Amino acid sequence: MRIWTAALAVIGDEILSGRTQDRNVAQIAAWLNVQGIRLVEVRIVGDQTAAIVEAVNDLRARNDYVFTTGGIGPTHDDITVDAIAAALGVPVVHHPQALAILERHYARRGEQLTEARKRMARVPEGAALIENRMSGAPGIRIGNIFVMAGVPHITAGMLDALTGTLEGGTPLISRTIGCWVAESEVADLLRSTEHDHAGVVIGSYPFFRDGTGGANFVVRATDAALVDTCLADLAARLVTAGYTPVDGGI
Amino acid sequence: MRIWTAALAVIGDEILSGRTQDRNVAQIAAWLNVQGIRLVEVRIVGDQTAAIVEAVNDLRARNDYVFTTGGIGPTHDDITVDAIAAALGVPVVHHPQALAILERHYARRGEQLTEARKRMARVPEGAALIENRMSGAPGIRIGNIFVMAGVPHITAGMLDALTGTLEGGTPLISRTIGCWVAESEVADLLRSTEHDHAGVVIGSYPFFRDGTGGANFVVRATDAALVDTCLADLAARLVTAGYTPVDGGI
Repeated sequence: MRIWTAALAVIGDEILSGRTQDRNVAQIAAWLNVQGIRLVEVRIVGDQTAAIVEAVNDLRARNDYVFTTGGIGPTHDDITVDAIAAALGVPVVHHPQALAILERHYARRGEQLTEARKRMARVPEGAALIENRMSGAPGIRIGNIFVMAGVPHITAGMLDALTGTLEGGTPLISRTIGCWVAESEVADLLRSTEHDHAGVVIGSYPFFRDGTGGANFVVRATDAALVDTCLADLAARLVTAGYTPVDGGI
Repeated sequence: MRIWTAALAVIGDEILSGRTQDRNVAQIAAWLNVQGIRLVEVRIVGDQTAAIVEAVNDLRARNDYVFTTGGIGPTHDDITVDAIAAALGVPVVHHPQALAILERHYARRGEQLTEARKRMARVPEGAALIENRMSGAPGIRIGNIFVMAGVPHITAGMLDALTGTLEGGTPLISRTIGCWVAESEVADLLRSTEHDHAGVVIGSYPFFRDGTGGANFVVRATDAALVDTCLADLAARLVTAGYTPVDGGI
């Protein structure tokens, strides 16, 4: 079975300084899974051309798709387009359709398409646009690279525009059961359950809540029947061991 | 001036699947800055030995410090220790002090140190421990690698134990002013202000709130006087251009 993979380069000094909490990894990961594409690696780099070029070139060579977020606004610290053009060895050009979109966008607000705003129509030569219903400035697709906004709700709109357009495989199915148990108590049980169900991966995620500890166990496979069988078996083994599993997780 | 750099490898399928929102990048970034160390790259990889080995070996070669989060619990999917030992080419051993800590920890709760729990005392040979007051199982330091928990509040406790112990340089100082303005309107102003203040970097971070848009401008440098001078100049230029800057950001 062909597995389709994606990587994500999150671009921005504000993420690496701790100023801004990234939200795009989780939303792009969840969206990709629905498309049948697996997010296998993320790199977070600062607003530096060399770092972006290296990340994009590494990631595009070994994944079906590469997404980037951040650095496509109108200001001097928005260098993603130039860095991706450099990574691909192509010039940066103004995309006529992007200029038209921005002109309409600002005209509706009674404003001018200034030189600074025209920056948002710059793309690596050969690129196509990704629609952005939120703020005018489009995303960019070139080769297997998808250049998205940094602001999460704008990225969400761009993902929406891409839904169903990327070839993928079978989505990974996951189901969760939780238990008020220290994961160390059921480590052997988890290991042997996973071992007995080929093609299934079980993740164990401990938590502390209301002064006591527990763990959620996530069963993942591309085959829903395998997931269901393994989950039922895991629940039965937990009951046999004296615990009370909670379907859907805690 | 010597700049001390760190990289972070976030390890866990749950981050790449979108199930869990990472909180460690932001907290480690903020903590490192106080230590005078700059977080320059993050990689998020899944629970696979090859991916962890590659990330750790890449990152440790080109940074002063490498942090990892995740994958140090007692269950079968916790493979970080083995992967780091593989990256360093050393065997995995049980650390006597870690065994003693775990024995005391479980004895206080009237419980046994089972084989599964002893897994949490496994370290790459030659490692030292990082104290964990939250849950017993310690973090690990080996060479320039710091192996931390995945659960954010446990990581926070480990960072606390490390505070002041790592050599660093001058922290990056940042100050923010905000403005109810589309960043495209002040793009030239920002660019020229940054250009006129060598050693200072200005970041522009747009937001949408209460139905309208604005941006925060973050001025960063290692010299506080440079930051203050640039910030005052930026505020003055914004006022001259007809805007009302808000000290501290919006």
